[in-house]
Amino acid sequence: MHLVTEIVNDKRFQRFIIAVILLNAVVLGLMTQDFPPGTLRLLMAIDDICLAIFVVEIALKLIAFRTRFFRDGWNVFDLIVVGIALMPEAGGLGVLRTLRVLRLMRLVSVIPSMRRVITGMFLAIPGGASVAAVLAILYYVGAIIGYTFFHATVPQHFGDMGTTFFTLFKMMTLEGWPDIAGVVIEQHPHAWIFFVVFIVLTTFTTLNLLFGIIVDAMEKAKEEDVREQMAEQGMPVDEESSEMRLVMIERDIREIHAMLVAMQPTMTRPAAE
Amino acid sequence: MHLVTEIVNDKRFQRFIIAVILLNAVVLGLMTQDFPPGTLRLLMAIDDICLAIFVVEIALKLIAFRTRFFRDGWNVFDLIVVGIALMPEAGGLGVLRTLRVLRLMRLVSVIPSMRRVITGMFLAIPGGASVAAVLAILYYVGAIIGYTFFHATVPQHFGDMGTTFFTLFKMMTLEGWPDIAGVVIEQHPHAWIFFVVFIVLTTFTTLNLLFGIIVDAMEKAKEEDVREQMAEQGMPVDEESSEMRLVMIERDIREIHAMLVAMQPTMTRPAAE
Amino acid sequence: MHLVTEIVNDKRFQRFIIAVILLNAVVLGLMTQDFPPGTLRLLMAIDDICLAIFVVEIALKLIAFRTRFFRDGWNVFDLIVVGIALMPEAGGLGVLRTLRVLRLMRLVSVIPSMRRVITGMFLAIPGGASVAAVLAILYYVGAIIGYTFFHATVPQHFGDMGTTFFTLFKMMTLEGWPDIAGVVIEQHPHAWIFFVVFIVLTTFTTLNLLFGIIVDAMEKAKEEDVREQMAEQGMPVDEESSEMRLVMIERDIREIHAMLVAMQPTMTRPAAE
Amino acid sequence: MHLVTEIVNDKRFQRFIIAVILLNAVVLGLMTQDFPPGTLRLLMAIDDICLAIFVVEIALKLIAFRTRFFRDGWNVFDLIVVGIALMPEAGGLGVLRTLRVLRLMRLVSVIPSMRRVITGMFLAIPGGASVAAVLAILYYVGAIIGYTFFHATVPQHFGDMGTTFFTLFKMMTLEGWPDIAGVVIEQHPHAWIFFVVFIVLTTFTTLNLLFGIIVDAMEKAKEEDVREQMAEQGMPVDEESSEMRLVMIERDIREIHAMLVAMQPTMTRPAAE
Repeated sequence: MHLVTEIVNDKRFQRFIIAVILLNAVVLGLMTQDFPPGTLRLLMAIDDICLAIFVVEIALKLIAFRTRFFRDGWNVFDLIVVGIALMPEAGGLGVLRTLRVLRLMRLVSVIPSMRRVITGMFLAIPGGASVAAVLAILYYVGAIIGYTFFHATVPQHFGDMGTTFFTLFKMMTLEGWPDIAGVVIEQHPHAWIFFVVFIVLTTFTTLNLLFGIIVDAMEKAKEEDVREQMAEQGMPVDEESSEMRLVMIERDIREIHAMLVAMQPTMTRPAAE
Repeated sequence: MHLVTEIVNDKRFQRFIIAVILLNAVVLGLMTQDFPPGTLRLLMAIDDICLAIFVVEIALKLIAFRTRFFRDGWNVFDLIVVGIALMPEAGGLGVLRTLRVLRLMRLVSVIPSMRRVITGMFLAIPGGASVAAVLAILYYVGAIIGYTFFHATVPQHFGDMGTTFFTLFKMMTLEGWPDIAGVVIEQHPHAWIFFVVFIVLTTFTTLNLLFGIIVDAMEKAKEEDVREQMAEQGMPVDEESSEMRLVMIERDIREIHAMLVAMQPTMTRPAAE
Repeated sequence: MHLVTEIVNDKRFQRFIIAVILLNAVVLGLMTQDFPPGTLRLLMAIDDICLAIFVVEIALKLIAFRTRFFRDGWNVFDLIVVGIALMPEAGGLGVLRTLRVLRLMRLVSVIPSMRRVITGMFLAIPGGASVAAVLAILYYVGAIIGYTFFHATVPQHFGDMGTTFFTLFKMMTLEGWPDIAGVVIEQHPHAWIFFVVFIVLTTFTTLNLLFGIIVDAMEKAKEEDVREQMAEQGMPVDEESSEMRLVMIERDIREIHAMLVAMQPTMTRPAAE
Repeated sequence: MHLVTEIVNDKRFQRFIIAVILLNAVVLGLMTQDFPPGTLRLLMAIDDICLAIFVVEIALKLIAFRTRFFRDGWNVFDLIVVGIALMPEAGGLGVLRTLRVLRLMRLVSVIPSMRRVITGMFLAIPGGASVAAVLAILYYVGAIIGYTFFHATVPQHFGDMGTTFFTLFKMMTLEGWPDIAGVVIEQHPHAWIFFVVFIVLTTFTTLNLLFGIIVDAMEKAKEEDVREQMAEQGMPVDEESSEMRLVMIERDIREIHAMLVAMQPTMTRPAAE
């Protein structure tokens, strides 16, 4: 058991897995080309071997970490994208097998620097949760208004709630909205209010959301960076945010100032001031 | 009377209202689906009950806060979106009843974290007011120029001032502007100047406006955050901006430096310097 | 002469001019509507009166400031937009009279806060000059490559250099580029390289330019703000950038530290450290 | 040999080369116009002379710097864009001669301030490498999924891997994606999931990448600026990042505070605190 943990944590084992993922990426890419049946069978065989290796890898990790395995979101992610390929051919889930290419996303979970990028984004999401909720409400309200007013006259864009949501998504990307608006306005001359208000509000909220998450993630990455530098130089690493640390510097300086002012009477006055 | 104020401020009362809004959201969503008349009647009954609860809630708040009720913009917002549903069926205002879905926006006014997002944006708007005014002038001038030159030859896009404003809005979203420009340039070969200048100026000004508001709102949120942390740790919270506080730190440090230099002659010189 | 200077600098005179511009804006807006000839003649009379007032205003300023008048870019701007309306009806310049609506842009030059927004952007432009030059070179090189390869086969988009520049501008706004690319790729299968490279490079450079100017303008505005606050509180205002000031704080603190360390031997050692 | 190095480093020599590039830019621009054969021959002669000057310039640099020539990326860039024009007319590489206009990009390599812009961007790229890798994986996985599901039914957009990549690039610019999605969804009603997920993920990742690189480049430029100012004022220039320096200021202040607190017992207590 101890040996398994050692294997799983071994750098060489991790590098081997990265190599297998890259090989698998090349094979899956080649499989989209027109090859003679023999070559295709070979590629599929290699793909199967890669899959087998991943299954063994996950099995080893399960043995090594047991229930702790499921505490790390990345392990769960690995389990799902590998598990997809093991779906039974028959039945409604068969189509998921085609998604075996998602397995290549494992590169992200295996290479630390890319893993950090994604983790950073996820850590930044809570800060954007309120903005995302506002966006969701805008969507829901916009969809019900759009459906209520236009579903009878413009069914191609607002025929049912699903279509309406997709239409609103198109409008949020701004792509082709004048065409949709044109068709609607022919029937409802005042509908321009709906389009202008929806576009202005969602564009602004979306930018706010994206921008907030990106800036937040960048700041977290930078603080992480400083902490690593400090740890390297043997300085004590504290957990406070840089803003909070600035406030504490400020307090220290005020106290220093007050102490020195208190010392003054017993000494010569400063030249300046 | 005292009891009413207590009820209105009770956490459980607020949670109940949130629950009613969520229920109402689900009901209004379901009403867009094709249900047998019986189910639809049930949904409409639940919707009416939700509405009744909101009316009672606002009435309670009016009793509790009296004229202070109107000082909080969020209360006015609640009053309007609930009031819409009470419009008389007949008459020109009947169409507003369809906007009862706006009631769901109350989620924003009821949940503090979302409320803060919107308040933050509103607080950031004054900083962007000058830029918004520049944008409005660009629009107005652009509309009059566009109308004057093109309304006779391209009436589908510049036929009257309303159409012209909508055309300019389309151009600002960049969506389909080459088509509009193509039609116009066929008649007015020099019109490309108008399109290029208008697009460059409005795109830049709009980005400036959005960016300014978003950054401002983010900074305000961060300062608010630091203040909360300081209050939690029992530190005195001051109202100055972080920029201003930096300037004051600077002044303190200069004075400290001067005082220490003045002390020097009576002591040993520093090793460094 | 002294009296003229006083009038021109008087707050009330400036407010009067703002009122005239706003009136003129309303009149020019109304002139786009269909009114009976009598009303139109009235509107045109009011417009002429507004114009006369602007001419008198500029004449007064010329008398008051003489050659200094031309040193302020805003005065030159006013002179041009007012002068446009005085062009002779006949001749090639007659069309410029239609641009009299540009006169409304004077609002920007008259209201200080909007003036500051525009000045801020202009001040930020030098910082973006190098990026803008890179963008211009990309354009010029892209236009010559596009023209050379495609002008014979796709004359509607690359027929001459003017058309080519306009096509590249469309591509930079990303609007309709797949259509243009589609037509070209039919004839030149490898042309996708041109389109992808041009779009990636110009999008990135444009974002860099816009972003740089906006951030720069925002920082300048913030430093200006701090200086105003400092001046209000009677603190000495220095001209150094906030970055440079940070560096000087740093140096002061190092010296303070060194001085205190030098003092130490004669006193008790600090508890910490 | 010494003389050659001197010539190459001479400011006047560099200015002469800039003038030749600008002349060449004008000539290449004029060559796109319809001129009588005589004028065209003259322009081509001038172009040849410019090319000859560039060849001599590079030869001189090769003599002056020898193998060090190749260490500077800009020299290699110059060598390539000049070398393009020397390709043999016949053979597959003849088409590259048309790319002689790339020679104008030498302006960037010759003018220091533009060179710095590009260098800044390149220096910022490593910071974005992980994000770019995530984007590349998204692309590769998206292409294989798109090809696998849609290549049989929508060959015009997903017919082979090349077409699929180009289609995904179009989708990333958001341009015309509703048309592509429309065609696909007719055949595969659930394909909207693919489009929405792909657009959300790539838009977010691309913004993150662009934004990260631009902000990083701007910060590097600002630190460079401060260092130049410090060097001008004769202050010691250190290589640490501004974040790291802030941490060290903090440590100094804490030590100063501790030292002063230790001094206190022997003196009067501060008034504040």
